[in-house]
Amino acid sequence: MGRLPTVSDVAKLAQVSRQTVSNALNSPEIVKATTLARVLEAVDTLGYRTNAGARRLRTQRSSTIGVRFEPISDGVSGGLLDRFLHAITEQADSLGMRILLFTAVSQEEEIAKIRQLRAGSDIDGVVLASTFHGDRRTEWLVRDRTPFVMFGRPWGQGKAEVPPHRWVDVDGATGVKEATSHLLSVGCERILFLGWPSPSGTGDDRRNGWLEALATHAAASSSSAMRLWEAQAQLLHVECRDTLHDAETATREALAAHPEVDGIVCASDSLAIGARIATVMTGRSDIPVVGFDNSAVAQALGLSSVDQRLDLVAAATLELLIPTMDGAPLDEADNHRLISPQLIVRDTPIVLPLGSGEPRSSL
Amino acid sequence: MGRLPTVSDVAKLAQVSRQTVSNALNSPEIVKATTLARVLEAVDTLGYRTNAGARRLRTQRSSTIGVRFEPISDGVSGGLLDRFLHAITEQADSLGMRILLFTAVSQEEEIAKIRQLRAGSDIDGVVLASTFHGDRRTEWLVRDRTPFVMFGRPWGQGKAEVPPHRWVDVDGATGVKEATSHLLSVGCERILFLGWPSPSGTGDDRRNGWLEALATHAAASSSSAMRLWEAQAQLLHVECRDTLHDAETATREALAAHPEVDGIVCASDSLAIGARIATVMTGRSDIPVVGFDNSAVAQALGLSSVDQRLDLVAAATLELLIPTMDGAPLDEADNHRLISPQLIVRDTPIVLPLGSGEPRSSL
Repeated sequence: MGRLPTVSDVAKLAQVSRQTVSNALNSPEIVKATTLARVLEAVDTLGYRTNAGARRLRTQRSSTIGVRFEPISDGVSGGLLDRFLHAITEQADSLGMRILLFTAVSQEEEIAKIRQLRAGSDIDGVVLASTFHGDRRTEWLVRDRTPFVMFGRPWGQGKAEVPPHRWVDVDGATGVKEATSHLLSVGCERILFLGWPSPSGTGDDRRNGWLEALATHAAASSSSAMRLWEAQAQLLHVECRDTLHDAETATREALAAHPEVDGIVCASDSLAIGARIATVMTGRSDIPVVGFDNSAVAQALGLSSVDQRLDLVAAATLELLIPTMDGAPLDEADNHRLISPQLIVRDTPIVLPLGSGEPRSSL
Repeated sequence: MGRLPTVSDVAKLAQVSRQTVSNALNSPEIVKATTLARVLEAVDTLGYRTNAGARRLRTQRSSTIGVRFEPISDGVSGGLLDRFLHAITEQADSLGMRILLFTAVSQEEEIAKIRQLRAGSDIDGVVLASTFHGDRRTEWLVRDRTPFVMFGRPWGQGKAEVPPHRWVDVDGATGVKEATSHLLSVGCERILFLGWPSPSGTGDDRRNGWLEALATHAAASSSSAMRLWEAQAQLLHVECRDTLHDAETATREALAAHPEVDGIVCASDSLAIGARIATVMTGRSDIPVVGFDNSAVAQALGLSSVDQRLDLVAAATLELLIPTMDGAPLDEADNHRLISPQLIVRDTPIVLPLGSGEPRSSL
C-alpha cells in the first residue's frame, strides 16, 4: 500500500465497522469470537501495528503495572511472592491490565527503573513488594507522584501516623492467634512460640497473635490461669534465624529446658519443619506443630500452616491501585487493606526418613 | 509551558546534551550515575513522558518479551516455571529487555492475546512454555510470523523432521542417566524406574536415560550382565500418576513383587517422595531414591534430585529469541539448544514424622 495501514483498512478487509475494530483491539471480551478472529486476521494480514501504541502515546496510559521481580529465592517459603504474582496477573488480566516485570539490585536502581518505565509510558503504576523497616522507596515514590500500592505494612511508622500512600498486608497476628487457639482447643496448655529475632515488623506481629490467644484463653479461665499465662508468655518464646537447622537446635534446647511444652506455633514453615524434626528426634513427636505460609513444602509434608490468602491480597492491591492510577487523591481514612489469613489444619502423621537438605556433592 | 516537554527541555534543565538525555533513557548503563540522576530528576520535574513511547511507535520495537503466566500450580514441582521466569527476567533485564505477563485460558485465547500485544507493539517476541504433544500454538505462530522460542521439545515430530521454529529443552534422558549411573556407582544393582504412563514425551525421554545407564553398565560387564540388564529393563519399570499417594502405592507393590530392588530413580520429585515413604513404611529405608526437578520440597527434605538448570535454559532461550526478533531467518541446522541438567546428591537421612498432605479441615 506504500503507507502504514489504518483502522479503516482493517475494518474494510474484515468487513466490520471501525468501532468493531477498535473494540476487538481494546475490549475483545465484548466482541463475538468469530468477528474477533476475522478482525485479528485482518490486523495480521495488513501488518496493522500502531493503534494501541498511538493510543498509549496519546493518553499516556499503558494499562500496565510494573512489578520488581527479584532473583529466585530458595528455601521453604521462597515461592511466596511468586504466588502473589500469579494471583495479581490473573486478576489484572480480567480487568484488561498486564504486569511488566523488571529487576533491580538496589532501592536506588528500582527507583531509576520505575522512572524510566514511567517516562516511556510503559507502566501506569507500581506494586512494591518485599518492603522492610526503613524502606526508602515509598518516600521517593510519593514525592515523584508515582501511583503505587505497597504489599507490606509501613512498619517504621507509629500507630497514630497515617502513611502518605496505600498499602495492603496480611494480618499475621490474627493468623497466629487462630493457630494458637486451635492448639488450645485440642487440649494443648503449654504452647511454645518459635519466631525471629526482634525487632522484626512481621515477626513481632505474628508473636503478638500468640500472646493474644493465650491472654484471651487465660481471661476466660481463672486468675491463676492469668498468672500462668504471664509466666508462659515470658518463658515459652524462642527466637532464631529462619533456617531448619537453627529451628531444630532452638526447639531442642527449649524442649530440654521446658519439658512441659505440648504444642508449638511458628512464625514460618521453615521454623515449623525444624521444630518438627526436633520433636521427633527427642521422642516428642506427639507435640503438634503449626507453621506459617502454607508453602509447597508444608503441603507436601502434611504440616498444619497459616495460608496468607494471596488471592485476596492481589484483589485488594488492584482495588487500591486502579483508582490511584486514575488520579484519585489519597483518602487517609481508607488507604489500606489488612487481609485475614486462613489456618489449614493437617494431622495424619506418618514417619519418613529424610536427608538434612545439605547437598553432599554435585556431579 | 503550555506544550508537551521535549528532549531539549530536559537537556536544558539537566544541563546536559540531548544525546546524554537519550542515553539516560535508552542506555542508562553508559551514563555516569550522578548525570543519570540529574537527567531523571529533570524528566520527572518536567513530566517528560513521550520519548520511549514515540520511539517504540516509530520503530515498532518494545524491547519486551511476552510470556503467558499460568495460574498457581500446586504440588511438589509447581514452582518450576516460576524459577524459569525469574532466570529469564534477570537475564533479559541485563540485555535491556523486559518481560510482560499475560494470561489465557486456552490455546486460542493465547494466540489472540499475542496478536493483540503485537498489534499494539507491546511485545517483540514470545516465549512459549508448557508445550505438549499435539500443541497447535507453534503452527499458528509460525504462520503469523511471530518471533518465538519454545521451552520444550516438539515431541510430536519424528526425529528426522526439523520443526519450523526454535526451541530449548532440558535433556531429561541425560539427567536420569546420571542419576542411575550414580546409584550403580554406589553399589546398587537392581534399580527401579518409577515414571509416568506412556506415551509421555518428557516421561519416556527420562525413562530412556535409565535404560541407557543400565545398558552402558551391562555392556561394560560380562554377557550374563547383559542378559540381566534385559530382564531388569523389562521388569523394574513402574508407571503411575504424578502424586505422592499413587507413587507410594506403586512403589509398595513393586517392592513386594521385586524385593531385590536396591535403588529407585524417579521421573519427578513427587514420585520420589512417594517412593521414599513406601521404602520407609516397608522397612526398606536403606534404598536410595533420586527425584527430578530439585524442587523446594526435595531441597527441604534432603532428597537427591536432578536440577533442570533453568538459568542455562533462560540464557539459551534469549540467545535464540533475540536474533529472531531482529528478523534473522531460521537456520535449520542451529534451531535449538538441549541443556544438560545436573544431579544434586544428598545423603544424610534423618527420621521425620509427617502428615499425608491431605488437609483435615480448614478453619
